[in-house]
Amino acid sequence: MKPVKVGICGLGTVGGGTFNVLIRNADEIARRAGRSIEVAAIASRRENSACDTSGFTFTNDVMALARDPDIDIVVELIGGYEVARELVMTAIEHGKHVVTANKALIAVHGNEIFAAANEKNVVVAFEAAVAGGIPIIKAIREGLAANKINWLAGIINGTGNFIMTEMREKGRAFNDVLAEAQALGYAEADPTFDVEGIDAAHKLTILASIAYGIPLQFDKSYTEGISKITPEDVQYAEELGYRIKHLGISRHTEQGIELRVHPTLIPKSTLLANVNGVMNAILVSGDAVGQTLYYGPGAGAEPTASAWWLI
Amino acid sequence: MKPVKVGICGLGTVGGGTFNVLIRNADEIARRAGRSIEVAAIASRRENSACDTSGFTFTNDVMALARDPDIDIVVELIGGYEVARELVMTAIEHGKHVVTANKALIAVHGNEIFAAANEKNVVVAFEAAVAGGIPIIKAIREGLAANKINWLAGIINGTGNFIMTEMREKGRAFNDVLAEAQALGYAEADPTFDVEGIDAAHKLTILASIAYGIPLQFDKSYTEGISKITPEDVQYAEELGYRIKHLGISRHTEQGIELRVHPTLIPKSTLLANVNGVMNAILVSGDAVGQTLYYGPGAGAEPTASAWWLI
Repeated sequence: MKPVKVGICGLGTVGGGTFNVLIRNADEIARRAGRSIEVAAIASRRENSACDTSGFTFTNDVMALARDPDIDIVVELIGGYEVARELVMTAIEHGKHVVTANKALIAVHGNEIFAAANEKNVVVAFEAAVAGGIPIIKAIREGLAANKINWLAGIINGTGNFIMTEMREKGRAFNDVLAEAQALGYAEADPTFDVEGIDAAHKLTILASIAYGIPLQFDKSYTEGISKITPEDVQYAEELGYRIKHLGISRHTEQGIELRVHPTLIPKSTLLANVNGVMNAILVSGDAVGQTLYYGPGAGAEPTASAWWLI
Repeated sequence: MKPVKVGICGLGTVGGGTFNVLIRNADEIARRAGRSIEVAAIASRRENSACDTSGFTFTNDVMALARDPDIDIVVELIGGYEVARELVMTAIEHGKHVVTANKALIAVHGNEIFAAANEKNVVVAFEAAVAGGIPIIKAIREGLAANKINWLAGIINGTGNFIMTEMREKGRAFNDVLAEAQALGYAEADPTFDVEGIDAAHKLTILASIAYGIPLQFDKSYTEGISKITPEDVQYAEELGYRIKHLGISRHTEQGIELRVHPTLIPKSTLLANVNGVMNAILVSGDAVGQTLYYGPGAGAEPTASAWWLI
């Protein structure tokens, strides 16, 4: 069988990790996928020193890659809204399957993108957009397919969880830990998306859409961040036997689907309360299975690369 | 598209749960599977009072069902080795796909069964055979497909975990808790499979086969149970900051694949140490993703039914 030809757009942290995993684990991936997967071209504004791209077609024109008749699958790892949206729509227009790790793009423009993909009969895969390396989209869509999902609740922003963990374990203040997270590269220079819950709301929107079979409705989410939490809040919670976690929660109610992101008190002895540092975890309740939980790294080059190609 | 016609063999706990979930969530399943799934016949020695089978074809001849030209998929939920093996081989011989929750059958006769299925170009699915409702086979085979699996370690016997949890939380003796588990229906009258690690070794054999792409090799597993653990062992572990869990562990080493089931000391603060009661959890380490964990109910009618049909 002919190999599947992949074009990687964006060679930053996730793009570089994806390239490296694809090359390193080519045999393993071919064995499991039943077909070999080949990097046919890379489009990026710059090289990545962690990647040896010699011998590969390299361009800085992502739109040209999206139109390239030799490419079967376009992998969008450039991030942001506008260029990413144009890239994905162009790829679909040219009959290519698309893989993206861009949760903001899917949460905000997903309905339009899926409609176009449906018309062209191509697949848009976005497993890596939610919770990095945890195969949570697949678990909900396929693994729990026999279930009606009642609710789900998760720690789906690693930066926020790192901050909450440090505040609890070391009694530190929010701003102090945020500055460290920025220095370590866990948090962006503008941390709004992470600490005000917007990134978590993007991911929650995507999870709910899959879980309940509904359109993406990012604007319906109640979104509250963690920036007002004080060391005293954390300490009082601890004294009462609880921990404060920044959760994304979605619930199937008679009035419709509830979407909310906010700091939540949860009992110390639960698994979610013990998910620490930058790790993510999602608890899903299905009518047949009961509660299941999926845990793993929610970010990082190789964890995200591990999930990028799942449909 | 024509509905997929399913024949259910065995209407005990899992068979009854499977029947009920298939009927109750028919619309949800059709939406997710892209095709409706219809119970065409049931073969069982007796009725199950939890199931309303009026209007369904009911027989007590499982082999006739396995040969029935109207059936696309045979669901083997009768358990045990010999009749189940004959049933599955007959179904394959007649070109039917097979779904089974029978870990003993797969661990011991799986190589022969898969070879026959391969020759007839049919699928043998066994998601429900390991860790009940947790979609762990799918997670390893598909969700982590980009990874080389380094090792996995799991609590994969709910009865054993219930016993270890009770011993720790209440300081009770092994025999005392076992008697309660038998009264509650968590443990069989002959508890050997559960408490001596044989059931866990069956499941570990299956997980390792999927994780490393190797044949099933149940006879290679080192298998040690929990029946010799005393309340003092549990208490000493606690004092040292550990908990004793009965784990199935598999590791990819330079000398080959290691398979072992035995009581293990693990630090109190880890997630595995906090998996209590009859719940199961499997920690999987992949070279790209790092560590991920999958948690949920490892047994029971509906949890197992939730997973039965996954391929």
